[in-house]
Amino acid sequence: MTNKVHKKIELVGSSDKGIEDALQSAVSFAGQTLRNLDWFEVVQVRGSIENGKISNYQVTFQVGFRMEGSS
Amino acid sequence: MTNKVHKKIELVGSSDKGIEDALQSAVSFAGQTLRNLDWFEVVQVRGSIENGKISNYQVTFQVGFRMEGSS
Amino acid sequence: MTNKVHKKIELVGSSDKGIEDALQSAVSFAGQTLRNLDWFEVVQVRGSIENGKISNYQVTFQVGFRMEGSS
Amino acid sequence: MTNKVHKKIELVGSSDKGIEDALQSAVSFAGQTLRNLDWFEVVQVRGSIENGKISNYQVTFQVGFRMEGSS
Amino acid sequence: MTNKVHKKIELVGSSDKGIEDALQSAVSFAGQTLRNLDWFEVVQVRGSIENGKISNYQVTFQVGFRMEGSS
Amino acid sequence: MTNKVHKKIELVGSSDKGIEDALQSAVSFAGQTLRNLDWFEVVQVRGSIENGKISNYQVTFQVGFRMEGSS
Amino acid sequence: MTNKVHKKIELVGSSDKGIEDALQSAVSFAGQTLRNLDWFEVVQVRGSIENGKISNYQVTFQVGFRMEGSS
Amino acid sequence: MTNKVHKKIELVGSSDKGIEDALQSAVSFAGQTLRNLDWFEVVQVRGSIENGKISNYQVTFQVGFRMEGSS
Amino acid sequence: MTNKVHKKIELVGSSDKGIEDALQSAVSFAGQTLRNLDWFEVVQVRGSIENGKISNYQVTFQVGFRMEGSS
Amino acid sequence: MTNKVHKKIELVGSSDKGIEDALQSAVSFAGQTLRNLDWFEVVQVRGSIENGKISNYQVTFQVGFRMEGSS
Amino acid sequence: MTNKVHKKIELVGSSDKGIEDALQSAVSFAGQTLRNLDWFEVVQVRGSIENGKISNYQVTFQVGFRMEGSS
Amino acid sequence: MTNKVHKKIELVGSSDKGIEDALQSAVSFAGQTLRNLDWFEVVQVRGSIENGKISNYQVTFQVGFRMEGSS
Repeated sequence: MTNKVHKKIELVGSSDKGIEDALQSAVSFAGQTLRNLDWFEVVQVRGSIENGKISNYQVTFQVGFRMEGSS
Repeated sequence: MTNKVHKKIELVGSSDKGIEDALQSAVSFAGQTLRNLDWFEVVQVRGSIENGKISNYQVTFQVGFRMEGSS
Repeated sequence: MTNKVHKKIELVGSSDKGIEDALQSAVSFAGQTLRNLDWFEVVQVRGSIENGKISNYQVTFQVGFRMEGSS
Repeated sequence: MTNKVHKKIELVGSSDKGIEDALQSAVSFAGQTLRNLDWFEVVQVRGSIENGKISNYQVTFQVGFRMEGSS
Repeated sequence: MTNKVHKKIELVGSSDKGIEDALQSAVSFAGQTLRNLDWFEVVQVRGSIENGKISNYQVTFQVGFRMEGSS
Repeated sequence: MTNKVHKKIELVGSSDKGIEDALQSAVSFAGQTLRNLDWFEVVQVRGSIENGKISNYQVTFQVGFRMEGSS
Repeated sequence: MTNKVHKKIELVGSSDKGIEDALQSAVSFAGQTLRNLDWFEVVQVRGSIENGKISNYQVTFQVGFRMEGSS
Repeated sequence: MTNKVHKKIELVGSSDKGIEDALQSAVSFAGQTLRNLDWFEVVQVRGSIENGKISNYQVTFQVGFRMEGSS
Repeated sequence: MTNKVHKKIELVGSSDKGIEDALQSAVSFAGQTLRNLDWFEVVQVRGSIENGKISNYQVTFQVGFRMEGSS
Repeated sequence: MTNKVHKKIELVGSSDKGIEDALQSAVSFAGQTLRNLDWFEVVQVRGSIENGKISNYQVTFQVGFRMEGSS
Repeated sequence: MTNKVHKKIELVGSSDKGIEDALQSAVSFAGQTLRNLDWFEVVQVRGSIENGKISNYQVTFQVGFRMEGSS
Repeated sequence: MTNKVHKKIELVGSSDKGIEDALQSAVSFAGQTLRNLDWFEVVQVRGSIENGKISNYQVTFQVGFRMEGSS
């Protein structure tokens, strides 16, 4: 992996289903415009409550991807 | 949201099913006595192991709710 | 201060004016129901943005107060 | 421990004797009004100095207790 | 807020007036090119000193905004 | 629990199904060689992305177990 | 800035006016005895409450200054 | 100390007497099987409460020891 | 530096030579597309091991640069 | 406490007796040269092990004192 | 990497040459008894000073390796 | 090391060569006025960039030294 350069950006995915779904849907969305997505790291899990129920999960995470043009 | 005051309390929900179920069951329990529950933030995920299996998940989280009487 | 017991609770004050105003308004509100408020510690400063302007500040902080009945 | 809900509150105990005494006296005080106290976690140890001597220890800690009504 | 995706970027605003002004001026600048700015979170407050006076405040903060195209 | 000694080790479980499955499979694996596994604490959740999809979850966690021979 | 050596010390400024005033007054005081003050970094904001009002702000911060004699 | 290699492991000692006793008893236990124990670092202090009294202290700490065979 | 706005992005540089080389090569790469690079801050140092040798260093760091158009 | 300026310095006290003794002996030593010592905050507890026993405790802590000349 | 289990251990390498050498020599030493070493993460860099010179670097880091028998 | 008292101060060394050189040059400088320098701990590594190249490294670290007069 010598001399490759990766960039990490921070996203917040949301879902009313759960933590993995919030992650997956945001990763899929990011994959539409960013190539070479490589890994993610969860930063925070929070969410909204409505009428005493969790109405959605909001998962903050970093996504790493190789920058185009780095060997 | 000007001049509203929210309070955050820290709860530990538990479940033998998983992380989301531990969160949801504790949020539901808290909602029986607290109105205006608004959001949650996960602080820690831990759990118990029995006979080499995870027997329950214990999710520590903060719940924020608007204090009655704040505009 | 020997053998006094203090309790700390976590509040979120908000204001469209600034950080000190968010703190002060939430401290005043808390002082209506809690006696012996003694000190505060800021945990986080965040806020909302509307139309490219900060519309309010939300300051999370802990308030310490002496518990009634502790010497 | 399935589906029990615990609450954590943050206290500051003080003592001129030492860290354990500050913890124990605050736990005893809390136990007068809260049932089901279960565990504690130390957050910070600080204290006051008078005339070049430690005059008291102030131990900030969280106490967890099972909420009444959770199974 | 189901299935929306937000992105967080980190900015450093500066001002010789104070913390809120450093935040507001950087939020305004960011709003010229980014739509849907939604919230901010302060990461660090620092600044420069000249001739024994604070010459400017530098406030590092994260800004969250909804990504175009996420529902 | 007086005078028992526990040891904590740090493991990384992985799974293409989700966070709980990554935890459970690593706990089961550890239970084949370690007796007295007692609890776990999640340290980090990260994972790999392939073709714009999360291909596996990697959950770093600590496992505590009572050391043989401690009373 | 090659081979300069800076030292950082930690101060607590206080003010009944606000956070910036607490910083500025402590920086001014430090500047009476220390030359070459260069930058500051806020560590913590806390304060005292009297009669339900914030009576003063106490801002802990680090100050960096170039050590005399380093090139 | 050139080119020595040390390993750190994480233990949890417990005692109904206090923090130092929990540390010492776990260090003694570890010393039965590990040679060259060199230093410890406290990670967390927590404990159990029974009938409104602290029934035992649980001190999590790291122990460092020189690995056999490193010069 | 009044009213300038800086942005910080997070990169991961890699090198089989060492930490400084991983930093420098990623800074050089970033400088091909970003003007006004001003400073960096190391977040994490990790790396890969092959056949018992460190095969490359991966240094995560933030880079700050002045945004075009801010005075 | 308006406009007083405090300084915090970091000390490491050591003792073969325990944590409180390490704190107290270092506070006493500091009090020989520094007036106005006001409070302390524990940063870290570590120590040395010899022959499977804790031979001394090393307690890192910050001490705050009012600077002479501040009102 | 599905269902592989990795273990992380914490080592302290030392060297009078520099940080990379301290890492490399400890990794080499660990590789003599542990197979499948995969990655490392630096936790802390510290060292000893003798006669006003750095006499050795002590680098604390975690090493991850795949556990034998996990697929 | 019983009843010795150490003090820790925080310095920032800089160098255009690398991290170790920034540390060593600041340690040497400090050793001109402080006796008994004993150890250092790195707090942060950052630096300046000019024309797309790292122009200098700035390493913040703590230095510990035994206070004269403590046994």
